[in-house]
Amino acid sequence: MKRIVIIGGCAAGPKTAAKSKRLNPENEVIMYTQEDLVSYSACGIPYYVGGSFDNVNNLIIRTPEVFEAQGVHVHVNHKCTKVLPDEKMVIINDERVPYDELVLATGAIVAPIKIKNQNLENIFHIRNLHDGEAVKEKIKISEHAIIIGGGYIGIEMLEAFIKNNLKVTIIEATDQMMPLFDKEMADLIEEYILERDKDKVTLIKNDMAEEFLGEKEFIGIRTKSGKEIMGDFCVVATGVVPNVELAKDCGVEIGKSGAIKVSNRMRTNIPNIWAAGDCTEKNCLITKRHFYISLGSIANKEGRVCAININGGDETFDGILSSAVTRYFDYTMSTTGLSEKIARRHSVDINIDPIAATITKADRAGYMPEMREITIKLVADRRSGEVLGAQAVGSGDADKRINIVSSAIQGGLNVDELLHLDLTYAPPYGTAIDPLHEAVYKIKKLMGNKWS
Amino acid sequence: MKRIVIIGGCAAGPKTAAKSKRLNPENEVIMYTQEDLVSYSACGIPYYVGGSFDNVNNLIIRTPEVFEAQGVHVHVNHKCTKVLPDEKMVIINDERVPYDELVLATGAIVAPIKIKNQNLENIFHIRNLHDGEAVKEKIKISEHAIIIGGGYIGIEMLEAFIKNNLKVTIIEATDQMMPLFDKEMADLIEEYILERDKDKVTLIKNDMAEEFLGEKEFIGIRTKSGKEIMGDFCVVATGVVPNVELAKDCGVEIGKSGAIKVSNRMRTNIPNIWAAGDCTEKNCLITKRHFYISLGSIANKEGRVCAININGGDETFDGILSSAVTRYFDYTMSTTGLSEKIARRHSVDINIDPIAATITKADRAGYMPEMREITIKLVADRRSGEVLGAQAVGSGDADKRINIVSSAIQGGLNVDELLHLDLTYAPPYGTAIDPLHEAVYKIKKLMGNKWS
Repeated sequence: MKRIVIIGGCAAGPKTAAKSKRLNPENEVIMYTQEDLVSYSACGIPYYVGGSFDNVNNLIIRTPEVFEAQGVHVHVNHKCTKVLPDEKMVIINDERVPYDELVLATGAIVAPIKIKNQNLENIFHIRNLHDGEAVKEKIKISEHAIIIGGGYIGIEMLEAFIKNNLKVTIIEATDQMMPLFDKEMADLIEEYILERDKDKVTLIKNDMAEEFLGEKEFIGIRTKSGKEIMGDFCVVATGVVPNVELAKDCGVEIGKSGAIKVSNRMRTNIPNIWAAGDCTEKNCLITKRHFYISLGSIANKEGRVCAININGGDETFDGILSSAVTRYFDYTMSTTGLSEKIARRHSVDINIDPIAATITKADRAGYMPEMREITIKLVADRRSGEVLGAQAVGSGDADKRINIVSSAIQGGLNVDELLHLDLTYAPPYGTAIDPLHEAVYKIKKLMGNKWS
Repeated sequence: MKRIVIIGGCAAGPKTAAKSKRLNPENEVIMYTQEDLVSYSACGIPYYVGGSFDNVNNLIIRTPEVFEAQGVHVHVNHKCTKVLPDEKMVIINDERVPYDELVLATGAIVAPIKIKNQNLENIFHIRNLHDGEAVKEKIKISEHAIIIGGGYIGIEMLEAFIKNNLKVTIIEATDQMMPLFDKEMADLIEEYILERDKDKVTLIKNDMAEEFLGEKEFIGIRTKSGKEIMGDFCVVATGVVPNVELAKDCGVEIGKSGAIKVSNRMRTNIPNIWAAGDCTEKNCLITKRHFYISLGSIANKEGRVCAININGGDETFDGILSSAVTRYFDYTMSTTGLSEKIARRHSVDINIDPIAATITKADRAGYMPEMREITIKLVADRRSGEVLGAQAVGSGDADKRINIVSSAIQGGLNVDELLHLDLTYAPPYGTAIDPLHEAVYKIKKLMGNKWS
């Protein structure tokens, strides 16, 4: 029997808590969160705002009452201000709480932005359900929204606003939407968005918000280049950073990525202190380098591994491929492993010679009315044939192919072996020669294989 | 420069022909088929009949003219009656045609049936485009169709007929639809079909057609159990057998499965005679045993490997997982590797102890309106944790998960490793803990892992 204290209540925390109790019902498991909610799907907020469903509570996975019924004690609105590792104690709402095992699942927070005049009303971040509710209320009385940031959240909020008939200006600091994708893939995404909603969407790239305009309420933005864009409200979607203040303060080691350094068993450098989820750094299965990314699916996996090890098991979590997907209406954007640009950035330190092939093909038999095109980009190491990553975009079934590649990379298949994958085929689901195989043919040809 | 003669014009033949010419434009490549069409998608016939598109020619991939333009000579309505290996000669339409390399791509033919009175009008097999056209004409003046066989083609034709507002009786000899699936998965399929179209579909299991009724025209069927079912026409979908007469006659070795035995380079036992596609037997990547199955995607892969080796390359095709998919309206049935029953049948000869876990879960976030349930059955070897196969059915995205498993099996991942697959997640595409991972948790628990 152990007293397990968990700080953080969104994804990794609840997973660790519930599993720790289930593995050993004798455990005393207590979860604290400074928010007023636990265990919710933050990823679902854009779809709530967009109108896919009306009740924000649908996003709550487990209420505190459900946790209590499972024997997990939940304290909302409880802020942990200090960890005292030597005493195995945390300070929560000024009270001292002892622990046998402490789990830091403090998640991520909005990345600081350097925009003047941040304290105006009607500037939103999309972090918790209340943010979602506030934005959903605001759009009812708005005509023009401004989104800062063209990544996952930016695009998802764009869909939500377009569904609600707003005009939207989206400002992206780089030269492309979806900066995690390679430029030419991002160009396809951009083309689709601007083609579909040309009358409603204004995209500003290579520019940054410099100042929010307005006295008390937001009325617009001035960009670095001097543009002034007026709008009824603004969503800042410029990313998150790991929430590590508490960890740093008590001596938990922070990695170069800025997130908590953990072993593949989710241990920190301090005995009896563990960490999981968006506050920890990740190991890339391809580069074997640590880096930071925030992903809900990974938080769950880490919470599980953390709970097993806390309870005496020996489970490892060796790393990730940063697999991710989103959509803009029927247009899917899916990725796994390294993009070409990230691969090139690592070419010296991990000794690879990246090569990429891109194809655009029908996702199912050309004669089927449901056929749509997808574009697949496959990245490999020219010398070894190791598959480094893939991206797929399009109105067709792009996500299926990316998950196949993700699985193949984890299985250690090289491009030659990828060619022999036995994929399902029927006219409503694919083509006799799958688009993924077409991408493999092309990359083999580029690699100098004369038989491709 | 070689004179390459190819017998057969549907899938493996055209692939071998086109690639042989492309790899070496000096080659003289001649393809003969006894049909009046080459290079078409037989898999698409049910969707043509169902009305997904109106022009049967959409199913033609390449016409003889296109082949000619690529330098491949095509002769339709040319029957090869004999192979003379010693003279490196074939007899085609009574003429002697010499070859340097001969490719047997003779495909499959309708499996012989033991039903009396087979020569009536309005009894159809679904093999080529003309069969499709004939059935499509017939349904215009029909009210009630009878289908013999509840496998892939049976279910696809059922969908086509229901779309055309026919009443349909389907007769299946075994105790389940889709005999390649395990019984409880097939029961779900059956339940869906009978729920969706209870007023139109009559399913008779554990019974066989014994006699076609009628004088000149088909008017019904008498079954073994004595039932008489009246209908306007009948589709026989009781499977195919490899077309190996020509091969057998000239001494090409036939495997125990009844199909042509080929090496993993698509060579037969006779020098300069190759075989590919539905006339050859397959190697199961899991059991390492040879068996027979007819799959269009595999025919293409084999044709490619055959062409490379004929032209001096060295490419292998080591085997398949029998991955396959079909649908009944929005209900998907997808499979890869061994079913539990097939695994049990092999448990002694390949020394496995099969264990299976089945889960039913949401295919994407429960709050998304597009969420549908899928049922996944995972089969593994209890002792080694080797993944043996998976089946998935449901109105949700079942096919994605099966292709992930297929890829994982080819990568040699065991159930533990399957758990760590980094799958994409976003609410419109999946769940934070993928249903496939839920199936893995369950099978690990059944295997005695107390941490699952």
